[in-house]
Amino acid sequence: MNIAGTTHTAQAGQHSPNTGLTGLNREVRVVQRATGIPGPEVFRVGEAPRPECAADGVLVRVLYASVDPGMRGWLSAERNYFHVADGEVMPAEGVGVVIESRDPRWQVGDQLFGRFGWQQYAAAGAAQLHWRIDPKIAPPPVWVGSLGFNGLTAWVGLRHLGRPRAGDTVLITTAAGAVGSVVASLARASGANVVGIAGGPAKVRRCLDDLGYAAAIDYKAPDLARSVVQACPNGVDVYFDNTGGAIADAVFAVLNKGARIVQCGTTSVASWNPPPSGPRRERDVLVKRLSWCGFVITDHADLFPRAFEELKDLYVRGALAADTQILDGLDAAPGALQYLYSGANHGRLCIRP
Amino acid sequence: MNIAGTTHTAQAGQHSPNTGLTGLNREVRVVQRATGIPGPEVFRVGEAPRPECAADGVLVRVLYASVDPGMRGWLSAERNYFHVADGEVMPAEGVGVVIESRDPRWQVGDQLFGRFGWQQYAAAGAAQLHWRIDPKIAPPPVWVGSLGFNGLTAWVGLRHLGRPRAGDTVLITTAAGAVGSVVASLARASGANVVGIAGGPAKVRRCLDDLGYAAAIDYKAPDLARSVVQACPNGVDVYFDNTGGAIADAVFAVLNKGARIVQCGTTSVASWNPPPSGPRRERDVLVKRLSWCGFVITDHADLFPRAFEELKDLYVRGALAADTQILDGLDAAPGALQYLYSGANHGRLCIRP
Repeated sequence: MNIAGTTHTAQAGQHSPNTGLTGLNREVRVVQRATGIPGPEVFRVGEAPRPECAADGVLVRVLYASVDPGMRGWLSAERNYFHVADGEVMPAEGVGVVIESRDPRWQVGDQLFGRFGWQQYAAAGAAQLHWRIDPKIAPPPVWVGSLGFNGLTAWVGLRHLGRPRAGDTVLITTAAGAVGSVVASLARASGANVVGIAGGPAKVRRCLDDLGYAAAIDYKAPDLARSVVQACPNGVDVYFDNTGGAIADAVFAVLNKGARIVQCGTTSVASWNPPPSGPRRERDVLVKRLSWCGFVITDHADLFPRAFEELKDLYVRGALAADTQILDGLDAAPGALQYLYSGANHGRLCIRP
Repeated sequence: MNIAGTTHTAQAGQHSPNTGLTGLNREVRVVQRATGIPGPEVFRVGEAPRPECAADGVLVRVLYASVDPGMRGWLSAERNYFHVADGEVMPAEGVGVVIESRDPRWQVGDQLFGRFGWQQYAAAGAAQLHWRIDPKIAPPPVWVGSLGFNGLTAWVGLRHLGRPRAGDTVLITTAAGAVGSVVASLARASGANVVGIAGGPAKVRRCLDDLGYAAAIDYKAPDLARSVVQACPNGVDVYFDNTGGAIADAVFAVLNKGARIVQCGTTSVASWNPPPSGPRRERDVLVKRLSWCGFVITDHADLFPRAFEELKDLYVRGALAADTQILDGLDAAPGALQYLYSGANHGRLCIRP
């Protein structure tokens, strides 16, 4: 199983100029709300003076910044757990190297995981700084993905809410994605039978060849419901759902008694305002004794130490999906979410600003 | 608060003849599947020889037999957790007095809670016998209801899944019903703010005057959604749902972050085959970090001792809703489920055969 690799994709066709020496900072700001998938009209790439290090903070040069499906919700006018204000630099988790420090916990040269945004330089205080990464264990983009919030999200969703036992069938949507692929690694480590749903033959192939799935289904192919039944002859005990919508409908039919549904995302539905109609679930929840739980990773910081322990251990043993894809330059940023939602990416998508 | 009382309703207008001395047994058998609410056509009242006591069982004279909303599912052609076969005596929990025993655990004169069915005499083995009741603590019909599976259902749903804290708002549907009224007692004991939804002004009045609700809503009145918002100014932390459907839709809008939905019944929807459409819930579950769980009481026997401890304690202190309503005679049985679903009953409905 070859599950750690990095692809560099110079999607914009050119590198951004390194403006560090000039005292300038290239940055991507949000200029309007998005309806549906945020496209280039939502952002503006520009230059501004390099930010100043705060009295108790650090200044970092951003090495990698994440492109995350959840950003759609941050940019939407609909209710969400977090919103970006117009005019702000687009927030994003990333890895930066400290180039100036006024916080005794961090030294120049430290590589930190934090909320640095889509920009080249970031002044960050305690609220934006998550933790120091160890580039000897894994390269920085992995710390944005499988050893960052993607991995933690997979761990909390699966271990805290899904709780698979050996022999259970775990079904995962966006199976080849940054979270789904780590869920598969964790579920395999539990001795579960792991089945994936992904979009298109290439992703299905990747699930089977690279990500350790026992079976994988292309939701774009005809008769999804029948494919799910065939791929899950013993039903489904844990449904790790990143999509919702019609894909979820096909899975509900095969959920076993006592199944756990982990609602991690809802990417298959373009707009939730108002919510679209679907089959009512009250009777399924009752008769099958389902447990259907949503979560947002930032609520679960207390679980991170336990999560890191298992994630790092699996990574070191080569058993953690940790593929990454890099977009070179901030000019690629305004189109990055459309690219992500097109499904053409694979693994953890990052911008190298 | 006057929450324990018994009303006798001779709905059928006459008592069944006591056939005990003649060696006959009056009984109600299921003769066909029901579509929707089971009416008289589903049952046949007849006579048969009094059953014989099995070699290791008991023979009881049935004092009270339950009429339960869940019986609709037992009699339906749709998927359910339990089905009654055509030709069987209608199964039902009840209290019977032992008139013959070949099981050393039970003595003649003991009053037992068991699955005795809609009949005058029942031969029962270990599988049908639940436990001995203590008529000195509460009269037999209470042991069919608030100190029987209704009370246990309320306890497991609220204490094990709903987990209200002091100050939480707990919203209960079928608020004046046999389960809902006990949920209200338990939620009050937790220091929660307890709000009920019931059908019609009389039940709303009962919620407020007799059952300890801080507020109660008539779902048959106009603008349910607005009434729910007004009755729950701090949102809803625990939604104990016995109805599903449009009532649940109104409640979803006011669920707080981290709310727990306890799916105990789905009585508002006439048929689930196929499930009717409603607003998709994936996004609510995710963004509000909901926990939506179904349960069936028979899965949770391990919790019964703890449940009984609190239920009996509240009953003895006069703080447990324990109203009962009695239908006299088995001739009332075939119409009993229609009567129950008409909403005209109050409290635990039993037949005295």
